[in-house]
Amino acid sequence: MPARQSFKDLKDLILCDIGNTRIHFAQNYQLFSSAKEDLKRLGIQKEIFYISVNEENEKALLNCYPNAKNIAGFFHLETDYIGLGIDRQMACLAVVNGVIVDAGSAITIDLVKEGKHLGGCILPGLAQYVHAYKKSAKILEQPFKALDSLEVLPKNTRDAVNYGMILSIISCIQHLAKDQKIYLCGGDAKYLSAFLPHSVCKERLVFDGMEIALKKAGILECK
Amino acid sequence: MPARQSFKDLKDLILCDIGNTRIHFAQNYQLFSSAKEDLKRLGIQKEIFYISVNEENEKALLNCYPNAKNIAGFFHLETDYIGLGIDRQMACLAVVNGVIVDAGSAITIDLVKEGKHLGGCILPGLAQYVHAYKKSAKILEQPFKALDSLEVLPKNTRDAVNYGMILSIISCIQHLAKDQKIYLCGGDAKYLSAFLPHSVCKERLVFDGMEIALKKAGILECK
Repeated sequence: MPARQSFKDLKDLILCDIGNTRIHFAQNYQLFSSAKEDLKRLGIQKEIFYISVNEENEKALLNCYPNAKNIAGFFHLETDYIGLGIDRQMACLAVVNGVIVDAGSAITIDLVKEGKHLGGCILPGLAQYVHAYKKSAKILEQPFKALDSLEVLPKNTRDAVNYGMILSIISCIQHLAKDQKIYLCGGDAKYLSAFLPHSVCKERLVFDGMEIALKKAGILECK
Repeated sequence: MPARQSFKDLKDLILCDIGNTRIHFAQNYQLFSSAKEDLKRLGIQKEIFYISVNEENEKALLNCYPNAKNIAGFFHLETDYIGLGIDRQMACLAVVNGVIVDAGSAITIDLVKEGKHLGGCILPGLAQYVHAYKKSAKILEQPFKALDSLEVLPKNTRDAVNYGMILSIISCIQHLAKDQKIYLCGGDAKYLSAFLPHSVCKERLVFDGMEIALKKAGILECK
């Protein structure tokens, strides 16, 4: 194996999480994201280390930045789960004990105990529920309305749809979490965390896992 | 108002619940359903009293059985909810205290206390979730797999999708029900009730409500 380049500091490289919708980056502690069409405009000069769950978006990244390195092979998460998405693996790597919720195009809920991944489940993403409601009945294709609380029972169709969607997601997470700490990441993390008293929003969770993986692989120096 | 015909017994008429997918009938205590294309073949001779949530299917019924009577105007359910589907109203009319779950093309969850409807929420139907998962990510368009229990955390994508769907629906119902009795009707009632210890399957719930409405209106004699 050729000697890998080693980086002294997180500032010297760029982390990239290629999702099904957008492509997310971490430059030190600054986060930004891009559509695949806009990647070139970012004009990234530093070395990119990435993970990907979407081939098409990965091709777009490599087209612009051919030296970007996929780090999927650089780490290990203890799990019996077959086919666990690399982004879920990275987020789990960043948590020793707790429940990890990644709320993006899909909502994944994973349980980690003493660094071991115990399993998890998947819900549609908030924005994707509309397709199921539409197929249930035309009248149920309602615009998303952010709810302030789940205290008051809905008294019209629009509220009933939004309430059902949020309560089912929240109560599913709570059922799995019991009294464990809940870590939320992904685009809808902030919105969902307001309904989950024992949760923390960790926007960087996937990148935290990538940082751990790079350190374990000796690509990033441990400080 | 012209004097309405009064029926001595439930056996003398047919109740009909026109849904978004199929058209359901109760002939005394026998239940059957039909696609709109097959209505003529049923060769119904008795007077039909119906409710409808689907105009197209209602037209198909009236085309075959022009004397069928819509009973939506014959009853009253106490509620502040605007736009509560007539089938939900009928099911609620049949319960004095409890939670009513109608699991069909959509899953409606309604709370009734001392005969008053307190509100409710709506989830996609089990079969309709697939459309939301598909839009979340292609790999999440998984075939439905009936689960035996929610005890074991999923360890592959297909289980993770089916588990997430069922747990979110079940935990939503349980959150709303607390210690109240749960009444389930609709095509997926039996499947869901296996996960809900304090529930009863009441296939006839909507028809029970229709019977109550007809009795209150004096169309059916009270025995």
